Amino acid sequence: MAFTLEELAGRFGGDVVGNSAQRVVSLAPLDQAGPQQLAFLANPKYLAQVETTRAGAVLISPDDLTKLASSDGRNFIVTPNPYAYFARVAQAFIDLATPKVAPGVHPSANVDASASIAASAVIGPNVTVEAGAVIGEHVRLDANVFIGRGTQIGAGSHLYPGVVIYHGCRIGERAIVHAGAVIGSDGFGFAPDFTGEGDARTGDWVKIPQVGGVSIGPDVEIGANTTIDRGAMADTIIETCVKIDNLVQIGHNCKIGAYTVIAGCAGIAGSTTIGKHCMIGGAVGIAGHVTLADYVIVTAKSGVSKSLTKRGVYTSAFPAVDHADWNKSAALLRNIDKLRDRIRALEAAVAAKPQGDA
Amino acid sequence: MAFTLEELAGRFGGDVVGNSAQRVVSLAPLDQAGPQQLAFLANPKYLAQVETTRAGAVLISPDDLTKLASSDGRNFIVTPNPYAYFARVAQAFIDLATPKVAPGVHPSANVDASASIAASAVIGPNVTVEAGAVIGEHVRLDANVFIGRGTQIGAGSHLYPGVVIYHGCRIGERAIVHAGAVIGSDGFGFAPDFTGEGDARTGDWVKIPQVGGVSIGPDVEIGANTTIDRGAMADTIIETCVKIDNLVQIGHNCKIGAYTVIAGCAGIAGSTTIGKHCMIGGAVGIAGHVTLADYVIVTAKSGVSKSLTKRGVYTSAFPAVDHADWNKSAALLRNIDKLRDRIRALEAAVAAKPQGDA
Amino acid sequence: MAFTLEELAGRFGGDVVGNSAQRVVSLAPLDQAGPQQLAFLANPKYLAQVETTRAGAVLISPDDLTKLASSDGRNFIVTPNPYAYFARVAQAFIDLATPKVAPGVHPSANVDASASIAASAVIGPNVTVEAGAVIGEHVRLDANVFIGRGTQIGAGSHLYPGVVIYHGCRIGERAIVHAGAVIGSDGFGFAPDFTGEGDARTGDWVKIPQVGGVSIGPDVEIGANTTIDRGAMADTIIETCVKIDNLVQIGHNCKIGAYTVIAGCAGIAGSTTIGKHCMIGGAVGIAGHVTLADYVIVTAKSGVSKSLTKRGVYTSAFPAVDHADWNKSAALLRNIDKLRDRIRALEAAVAAKPQGDA
Repeated sequence: MAFTLEELAGRFGGDVVGNSAQRVVSLAPLDQAGPQQLAFLANPKYLAQVETTRAGAVLISPDDLTKLASSDGRNFIVTPNPYAYFARVAQAFIDLATPKVAPGVHPSANVDASASIAASAVIGPNVTVEAGAVIGEHVRLDANVFIGRGTQIGAGSHLYPGVVIYHGCRIGERAIVHAGAVIGSDGFGFAPDFTGEGDARTGDWVKIPQVGGVSIGPDVEIGANTTIDRGAMADTIIETCVKIDNLVQIGHNCKIGAYTVIAGCAGIAGSTTIGKHCMIGGAVGIAGHVTLADYVIVTAKSGVSKSLTKRGVYTSAFPAVDHADWNKSAALLRNIDKLRDRIRALEAAVAAKPQGDA
Repeated sequence: MAFTLEELAGRFGGDVVGNSAQRVVSLAPLDQAGPQQLAFLANPKYLAQVETTRAGAVLISPDDLTKLASSDGRNFIVTPNPYAYFARVAQAFIDLATPKVAPGVHPSANVDASASIAASAVIGPNVTVEAGAVIGEHVRLDANVFIGRGTQIGAGSHLYPGVVIYHGCRIGERAIVHAGAVIGSDGFGFAPDFTGEGDARTGDWVKIPQVGGVSIGPDVEIGANTTIDRGAMADTIIETCVKIDNLVQIGHNCKIGAYTVIAGCAGIAGSTTIGKHCMIGGAVGIAGHVTLADYVIVTAKSGVSKSLTKRGVYTSAFPAVDHADWNKSAALLRNIDKLRDRIRALEAAVAAKPQGDA
Repeated sequence: MAFTLEELAGRFGGDVVGNSAQRVVSLAPLDQAGPQQLAFLANPKYLAQVETTRAGAVLISPDDLTKLASSDGRNFIVTPNPYAYFARVAQAFIDLATPKVAPGVHPSANVDASASIAASAVIGPNVTVEAGAVIGEHVRLDANVFIGRGTQIGAGSHLYPGVVIYHGCRIGERAIVHAGAVIGSDGFGFAPDFTGEGDARTGDWVKIPQVGGVSIGPDVEIGANTTIDRGAMADTIIETCVKIDNLVQIGHNCKIGAYTVIAGCAGIAGSTTIGKHCMIGGAVGIAGHVTLADYVIVTAKSGVSKSLTKRGVYTSAFPAVDHADWNKSAALLRNIDKLRDRIRALEAAVAAKPQGDA
């Protein structure tokens, strides 16, 4: 349960400065790390801690290394992004510490004879895999996962307990889908078929069948209890390396561009396209049928009702203030047209006055 | 896997113009349809496409049919609502294409001996049906569905994987409940039982038992991971043909009127009554103990804190704009009372000046 | 299925006035109660109903009792908090009426040999309990619950169907966790590891492993489909008697103070600390890394972006109004800086005028 610095550099890159045979057994912050622990400097304001740390080794950027008074007798792995390096090493330690689960299908699982399950996959208790589904190598389906007919799960994916993937969906390689997420549920579409008005109205909402699927690229993570609807005709699309937090709703026929991150409780209505590398804040709402350019940032709690065609940061949320003060401002806002009218009247009155009256 | 126009008209109504023996095997948009496909004209702006389509037949309204230069050699089903007709035909094709699941109870299901399961119902793997529950004809309970004691599921309903219906609830005929939805969880009610203030406060929140149920009418659709709480004393009520999207929260003792639609991420606090034929936009929040009239529309992201007693469209959401611009406006709004005071001072100053000074 | 007033007072406190042998078989409102029912007066405005009620007994405060014209021939339990007392009695009646479930492990459950299950616990169908988990006395795990390795569930807790608790979490005594809730899913944390800009950007989001757990105190209630993420390094903490409604998201490393209540659809981003006895309204959003003082109230739909260091009520939500009126106000708000400029210009013009010109 240890790595030498040489082993880490071999696996994750970076240059070792100091003793490459130094062993580290875990990670810790600079000010707490001991001689067998690996620390990291991600923010230059903690540079002084590097001078005094007891850490066995420190992850540091080339630039920060040059700022040290001395590196004598210390060990470093020099890497342009110590924080990302830390994350990768942390994962490696977790993988060491996590009990391995033997491949195979739990006897309580219900797997259709026509489904294809890779030999290295782990199919947990009470999992259901329907006809024609394809489960890739090293996939892990935890307890009570449901995979609908014909759905494909890419190699190395991990679906946590209770995840439901409807029929006809494709999940890419190395997906992480947290518990309770639902992918491929019907999009919300109904044709009004009513006649008459008011109390005399009769008729019905007629369901629009949703015959598209959901297509998810590689390296996507999806949060707990998040929902992604299947498309009406074509697929809902989630591209490479999109990261989605908990309790997010993505409507039918949305397309989410690669590397975009979406924070918790956000909701995106149907047929909306979000560009690549966007950052959608928590509880943001985005209307249907709009397009967001690449690199758009929408701050938390904001609402987007029209397309945002230019890279930038967009906001429509107010921070909470004292309730009574807020109510006063809100009342004035409701009557802001009256303030405008009073300004107009004043402008007219001032203009009507003789300019010089001497 | 085909229908003649005559068969469709027999099943769904409408008048055939042209060759009633024409067969169609699927649906397609006007500009893509081939000679064995059925297209539809829902929006008159695409009328020109009807003149050039290669579709085997077109669904069209009587009014639009009269606008065509010629209908010679073409086939139509004439119906007042081509879009709804399209939806019904699409569903018929899906029903043809979807593998039939044999009625019966999966051996891994746990069904209490006192529950009543109709012979035509399909009870999937690992389903639990508790004592006294009643499962109607042609009901389909997918994997891991839970039906609490005494709960009734109306004929023709389909509950997707992992749906949980607590005890003592009633679901009407032909319900569609998507994966992960929870119906009948306890309403959020606690009696404060504290003494003292500040750091000296002691006591407890005492749970108010929730002994009502949830009563859901026929033809209701409920989205994935949506939650509907049971009532405190009386039932929470969802009337006929209400359509609810994903991740919606409906509090205890709400009553949602017939034909109302509620988009994703909306939340409705307890004891609120929403009229018939309302449209509640995505991420709308509605306070508890208020009443919305029939035909009220609340636009996405808005908040309703008081009753809305008149039919109309209601809004309180801002669209996101450039972050820096927004912050400037928000700061001025926070101080809008100072703008008002400056206007007042100006009005006083202007009024104090002699009106005519010649 | 009845209690005498003496039995109730023995169990829940309070002083009996009148016939302590009076039996009650259920609860009812003052104006509907019959001679074998128990009513309660929580709001003095209904005092007149106490004079005329047919109830077998009434729960009343000492103060309200003195306001009655006469208590002759009537029965009371006098208690400082009749509403909380009512809640406790109601629960006692429910406990009487609810079928007892025999302790034991359902044959379809998957319990690891190294897990510890108290003899009085009820483990339902298809439950999974992983290695090293500890399930306390009288715990009830309903169908399809998942308990990850090493997780501890405190005595007397009830987890409803489909609840998922990841590995390494601790749930306190007497917890109520409603269906579909997910506790211990990974916090949302990724280190950016990109180089280049715009279309030339390459790289990846590197997952920050989440190695903390979730630690939940006693007497906590958690709503349906709510999600609580595990911490990155240290635990996410929910203190004693916190009550959380449905569809709430709590990010990694949050700390929620004792007795705080959080209404439905609220979202709290990571590393935020909320004080004790706070009330967080429905659909409130709270940013990450902020601190709320004890006794803070945030009204429904508001957003909190900065720490709130003083007890008080905070708001940033507008109530929905007529759509056209709102749009006018919103347009003026967007241009409120122009109103301010016009006021400035007026002030300058008025100031430039001679004050007295006679």
